Amino acid sequence: MTKSISGNQRQYIRSAEILSVGTEILMGKTLNTNANYLALRLCELGIPSYYQTVVGDNPERLEKVFGILFSRSDTIIVTGGLGPTGDDITLAVLAKFLGLKTVHHRETEIKLREYFRNANKKMPGSNLKQAMVPEGARILCNCMGTAPGIIMETDFGVGHEKKEKKRVILLPGPPVEMEHIFREYVEDYLIPLSPVDIKSRYIRVFGMGESEMEEKIRDIIDKAENPTLATYCSTGECLIRISHTCSKEKEPVSIQEEGDKKIHEISDEIKKRLGDYVYGTDEMSLPEKVLDMLREKELTLSFAESCTGGMLSSFLVKNAGASKVFKGSVTVYSNRSKIKVLGVKPETIEKYGAVSVQTAQEMAKACRELFESDIGVSVTGIAGPGGGTAEKPVGLVYLSVCVGESNITRELKIKGGREKIRVVSSLNAFDLIRRTLPDV
Amino acid sequence: MTKSISGNQRQYIRSAEILSVGTEILMGKTLNTNANYLALRLCELGIPSYYQTVVGDNPERLEKVFGILFSRSDTIIVTGGLGPTGDDITLAVLAKFLGLKTVHHRETEIKLREYFRNANKKMPGSNLKQAMVPEGARILCNCMGTAPGIIMETDFGVGHEKKEKKRVILLPGPPVEMEHIFREYVEDYLIPLSPVDIKSRYIRVFGMGESEMEEKIRDIIDKAENPTLATYCSTGECLIRISHTCSKEKEPVSIQEEGDKKIHEISDEIKKRLGDYVYGTDEMSLPEKVLDMLREKELTLSFAESCTGGMLSSFLVKNAGASKVFKGSVTVYSNRSKIKVLGVKPETIEKYGAVSVQTAQEMAKACRELFESDIGVSVTGIAGPGGGTAEKPVGLVYLSVCVGESNITRELKIKGGREKIRVVSSLNAFDLIRRTLPDV
Repeated sequence: MTKSISGNQRQYIRSAEILSVGTEILMGKTLNTNANYLALRLCELGIPSYYQTVVGDNPERLEKVFGILFSRSDTIIVTGGLGPTGDDITLAVLAKFLGLKTVHHRETEIKLREYFRNANKKMPGSNLKQAMVPEGARILCNCMGTAPGIIMETDFGVGHEKKEKKRVILLPGPPVEMEHIFREYVEDYLIPLSPVDIKSRYIRVFGMGESEMEEKIRDIIDKAENPTLATYCSTGECLIRISHTCSKEKEPVSIQEEGDKKIHEISDEIKKRLGDYVYGTDEMSLPEKVLDMLREKELTLSFAESCTGGMLSSFLVKNAGASKVFKGSVTVYSNRSKIKVLGVKPETIEKYGAVSVQTAQEMAKACRELFESDIGVSVTGIAGPGGGTAEKPVGLVYLSVCVGESNITRELKIKGGREKIRVVSSLNAFDLIRRTLPDV
Repeated sequence: MTKSISGNQRQYIRSAEILSVGTEILMGKTLNTNANYLALRLCELGIPSYYQTVVGDNPERLEKVFGILFSRSDTIIVTGGLGPTGDDITLAVLAKFLGLKTVHHRETEIKLREYFRNANKKMPGSNLKQAMVPEGARILCNCMGTAPGIIMETDFGVGHEKKEKKRVILLPGPPVEMEHIFREYVEDYLIPLSPVDIKSRYIRVFGMGESEMEEKIRDIIDKAENPTLATYCSTGECLIRISHTCSKEKEPVSIQEEGDKKIHEISDEIKKRLGDYVYGTDEMSLPEKVLDMLREKELTLSFAESCTGGMLSSFLVKNAGASKVFKGSVTVYSNRSKIKVLGVKPETIEKYGAVSVQTAQEMAKACRELFESDIGVSVTGIAGPGGGTAEKPVGLVYLSVCVGESNITRELKIKGGREKIRVVSSLNAFDLIRRTLPDV
């Protein structure tokens, strides 16, 4: 689908940038996830991108922005402003700026009519505007919405001495449509234009703080030139990206093979250093990992939750196919329900408290029996903001995994707000299951 | 704390813009929530903002960007690049660009030393850099991190004929620190500089699509000049913002009072048109609303969940004080657990299926009994991607609220992926409770 130009003649992208058009972003109505998605994808494709810009649905300001962007980058990816209403001006302003004629695109009109027919709606006349596209542009079908994506290649000379080849990619604003068109068409268009071949591997780490982890692999990070290492950390989890790039212009293919080898070497070394803090590679969340392990071992699971209040269960059920291993869960939010629904002994709660190793263990055991699952997992803790004491402060959480004859528990002392305490507790529970399973 | 300049002499902000500095945003490692937060706050303060920019930790490109921003806006809010490392160049580049000297700020150094002492850590020498600030700047204490916020007012004339007053506000990149400093200091600084007095009210709507809602109030939206109306819609929910602005330069205070009156009139008219689709005003989520209503009526609640898998429970428990009304919840993910744990009749499931009005009703009733709550609420449905049939497709969900002698049910047919089906089901359950409660 992309033009086939042989390697040496091709003009690789030297600098791309992302432009988001929409007053709703400037007003803070919409979080600009599109720019984030595109930035990550460009990075993964090895295409350098140095700027992101947001501008509203205003022709004068948008035109000025095009002037700035075209003067400093050779590839511009624009999202938003392609809809049918009067506010949607991206294409008109760009065509004017580049001095391009727009022409009717028959295929797009057919798709538009089909889209409305399928939705049992009459197509408003204004939507016909979306079938007008710049002459010579490549049209990318949007099967999830109305505005097609558009790729233009143009010799740009406005205000410049020498003409230069520029590329503009227009994508609709709604993220599902944008991402769909990007995956379906734009990626294939960009790969041959990337100045590098890039290979990446992700290593997933749980239970170690960012600085602790970096300390353990500091020398690898510092020494790494190609592959390079980057760490991405969020609540409770860290991700290490190992990327090997080789310039298409300069380096022979054999370097790429060597890159594979180097990625594996570094990956192995990191795994050795971080030990069982590494729970997986590439795309896989901790609950998915647990789901996979359970499926493989044909084991079933149930939960008894207190402070996490259904979050543990919700994290697991998020993944399709959870029903194969998940029997069920109870949220026992009061002492009474811990006793009545689960069968925790009143003496245990009285003697040790609802937030204690003993109560956690009884909860795990009881839910396993209640749901007749192989493994029972419990969480009990103080999520705050109220309910903490000097002895048992907000953030104190006990986890227990009951399997076979054993009952493995973990104590957590989490700093942060209610939501963070709940998320970190839930992820730790999955981590505890993951660490327990190999011995089952 | 802000300079007291009387109304007419003050230079109001004509155009602000937001600059985010950080290679991690360009690489897609970090979602730029800071820009979104600041955009929304500026909008709420009535300060016009027309552009957002992201640039990496690169001195040349950052300096070029400052050139662009200072030429088109009078107020620039910058986040990021204020840390202690060599990558953190925002302040140095800005000082160079504006020709400002940096000086040592004793108070900041004291706070820095205190910060590290409290964290039981030795302060790295590099952090001392953070006590160097532009001469004449106002320093905003960061009690949650190390980099202070900085406000500068400067006469800007580089490359311009006439000098113009410009304002720069530097804020640290970590969102909790940025938001804290913004709330504590920057808001008070900006309010008197806003060209308008602004009053807003939010109306919260559930159960109506965006276009359906807009159709019902289209004439109000179109007619509204001041107050203006804006709608913000997300999965299953809509928010209407009514804002009245009056120019500080032109309009007398009495207009402001009239504004209040107009906001109330429009708000009342919208509520009349949308009826009980309106569930609240201003800051309040649907689960919070339900929590509030239950607290007021001193009623307790329990859930029996299937496809939502703990999400309903998790949405409620997210709010502090949930324990006052929430007794507990079961996720019964298999037929066996529906029967064994909850006591749903096997015949019901066999005759009508697990996803049916009858099963939903029995589940709601059973969880009410199990947890001894006043109200029992159930959800059973097909979240997909597998498990759908022609008769019972993916997205078919039944909700039931059991209270007193009655059992109110709702059937949903939700389009979308697994996660959307779960979220929309959960919110609908809260909506059904909200609509049922007044009659209890």
